[in-house]
Amino acid sequence: MTDLIFRVMPNWEPVEGSLSTPLGFRAAATAAGIKKTAGALDLALIVSDSPDTSAAGLFTTNRVVAAPVVFSRRSLQETQGRARVIVVNSGNANACTGRAGFRAAQAIARAAARLIGSPSGQVRVASTGVIGVPLNPDVIVDRLPALVQDLSSERAGAVARAIMTTDTFPKSCLLRAEPNGVPVHLAGVAKGSGMIHPRMATMLSFLTTDAAVAPRYLQKLLRAAVDLSFNRVTVDGDTSTNDTVFMLASGLSGQSIVPGSKGAAWFEAGLVELCQRLAKMIARDGEGAKKLIQVEVRGAARVVDADRIARAVANSPLVKTAIAGSDPNWGRILCAAGYSGAEFDASKVEILVNGFRLVRGGIDVGFDEAAARRELDRKELTVRLDLHQGKASAQMWTCDLTHD
Amino acid sequence: MTDLIFRVMPNWEPVEGSLSTPLGFRAAATAAGIKKTAGALDLALIVSDSPDTSAAGLFTTNRVVAAPVVFSRRSLQETQGRARVIVVNSGNANACTGRAGFRAAQAIARAAARLIGSPSGQVRVASTGVIGVPLNPDVIVDRLPALVQDLSSERAGAVARAIMTTDTFPKSCLLRAEPNGVPVHLAGVAKGSGMIHPRMATMLSFLTTDAAVAPRYLQKLLRAAVDLSFNRVTVDGDTSTNDTVFMLASGLSGQSIVPGSKGAAWFEAGLVELCQRLAKMIARDGEGAKKLIQVEVRGAARVVDADRIARAVANSPLVKTAIAGSDPNWGRILCAAGYSGAEFDASKVEILVNGFRLVRGGIDVGFDEAAARRELDRKELTVRLDLHQGKASAQMWTCDLTHD
Repeated sequence: MTDLIFRVMPNWEPVEGSLSTPLGFRAAATAAGIKKTAGALDLALIVSDSPDTSAAGLFTTNRVVAAPVVFSRRSLQETQGRARVIVVNSGNANACTGRAGFRAAQAIARAAARLIGSPSGQVRVASTGVIGVPLNPDVIVDRLPALVQDLSSERAGAVARAIMTTDTFPKSCLLRAEPNGVPVHLAGVAKGSGMIHPRMATMLSFLTTDAAVAPRYLQKLLRAAVDLSFNRVTVDGDTSTNDTVFMLASGLSGQSIVPGSKGAAWFEAGLVELCQRLAKMIARDGEGAKKLIQVEVRGAARVVDADRIARAVANSPLVKTAIAGSDPNWGRILCAAGYSGAEFDASKVEILVNGFRLVRGGIDVGFDEAAARRELDRKELTVRLDLHQGKASAQMWTCDLTHD
Repeated sequence: MTDLIFRVMPNWEPVEGSLSTPLGFRAAATAAGIKKTAGALDLALIVSDSPDTSAAGLFTTNRVVAAPVVFSRRSLQETQGRARVIVVNSGNANACTGRAGFRAAQAIARAAARLIGSPSGQVRVASTGVIGVPLNPDVIVDRLPALVQDLSSERAGAVARAIMTTDTFPKSCLLRAEPNGVPVHLAGVAKGSGMIHPRMATMLSFLTTDAAVAPRYLQKLLRAAVDLSFNRVTVDGDTSTNDTVFMLASGLSGQSIVPGSKGAAWFEAGLVELCQRLAKMIARDGEGAKKLIQVEVRGAARVVDADRIARAVANSPLVKTAIAGSDPNWGRILCAAGYSGAEFDASKVEILVNGFRLVRGGIDVGFDEAAARRELDRKELTVRLDLHQGKASAQMWTCDLTHD
């Protein structure tokens, strides 16, 4: 292992590949018959071949948690962040299934551990799908031997499809950088249609890297990145029983990330970018959605105020339907800011769409409506509120809302 | 004035009439051309002929408040709860309209005061409609003389229609009781399609009574009744810039309501019933909504927990779409409870629809699905969660959510 020492900061570039492109990873997916649709992929396995793999995990804040979350959260603590295997199924959330549900999660993890030859504590499980229906573990356990046989670094693209439920497209991203001539990768898949009303669904994401990162530091980096990405596309508190993000770091690139170093800042930036790219895919994936909307709040006195306003505006169905119709109805934006619970002076607010000003000093600037509509017609647009009261800022991603 | 002394508690009965049926009230409505639709009623006047009329008012908690709210809130304080006149328009919210908007509200109140012969502080104004468009006060002021001419106790039914915006039906209610052989009335109109997504609109309600109630006590009673009714159909914080409830008490029935008396409890119960009837009409008035849903939470350790769960369940689009399809998907109900922020033990929860049990001890009881669907097919239904942890309870009203 060598610490990263840079002359210049190498860029993270999006490249073709999957979450098994980082060195040491293999994956496979299959149709196990958990989903009702015949032949639909619904079971996936992700494995790191490095015994020194670090693992981090973040889970739903919902008080009602699914069995796989209970199991995996416990494993994460017991193994102090060591894990090599992820088993994930769609079609059944294994939530609200009582003790039998926990035993099912346990049986799946044990079977996978036995087949791969790792301690069962090093297997994480995740599920998404219908709540309250018992999950028969045999359906999964019986398919595991074939899935292990099928593990490869090349065909892992199917994993992104196997975790889909209400998603309309698979969400996958691979970033690559070459510090000092040695490639390092950050990869991930995700599922979820985020806050896209009324199809709020479980958010799952699985991330891999071949950088070497100590488990506790990996956990810290993951939390920070998730706060700036996945937590910015879902409604406060609107977490499902199953929301889970797992990250595995194989270390096989030979590049080590040391806390506080210049390399750490570079790696963290890459991880944030990876998560934000996946989060934006979730935001974009709404039923009938046509536009990706970035909500930016600037000039707030406190971060909490910026954050509340960004969330309220991004979550407002009235704002989202206005943008769907390219209607420059800024009253709805200001109204959402007003009920957000944030402290601000409405008579100082400035509102812009892609830099085109609609409001200054809290009132209409008398803008050209046709020009405003052209800005709102774009496929990707930014709604900015400048409160002119301080220096705090926040952003959120969402999509427009149509009613077809 | 005589204090109410009862032998038996007289029932409040819903009867035919309007908000000018209580003694001392007259009202009128007209089409002033504020709404774009030609001939649509958009201006109304409510007047009490008693100089001793008490007035109470509650306003939006939105930080961005419309000019009529600023004006009326100030008047309420300055006059210490004395007012006789309400001028209300639909079609323009007079919100985010700067100083000109405040002057417009002022001009309307002054003109009405002059015509009726009351101090201008005794006029309350309210507006609902589009935000951010200047309201020309002359459009209203010019119509006031004819409106004053038209004031009557008989034709006031038009007021409920004149305050409608996205509402699909007028909302009006009159309750009558006869303590000691003397009739007392409680009447009201309301507008709003409440939390019915995505048409959350301004909530307005105007209430009248011919009971005699001192202004400060009237304010206290109104606040308590609104907390148990209108505040139970709108999303926490999803208040518009214009939400307003006004109540006028003429005292002309000769029946006086004395704080702490048995008559006070009886009057308060009537006021709560009036407000709940109007609130349910708002809950029922959703685009495409077919069912009125009452969410009841019982057995919570604390009221705050019961309240959070009731709100989260009632506001969950996933719950509302499931009920629209008569789908006994209790997982969505439990999931909403889980992200509500309430503290409870998921393994103790019982869930019932109209008394039909779906869940006990946090898991499916193995109910007959056809029977559950029959309960969910009803036009009015109750979803009950019993937490089995204490004695606190809360309820909310909402409607089902369809996507046509």
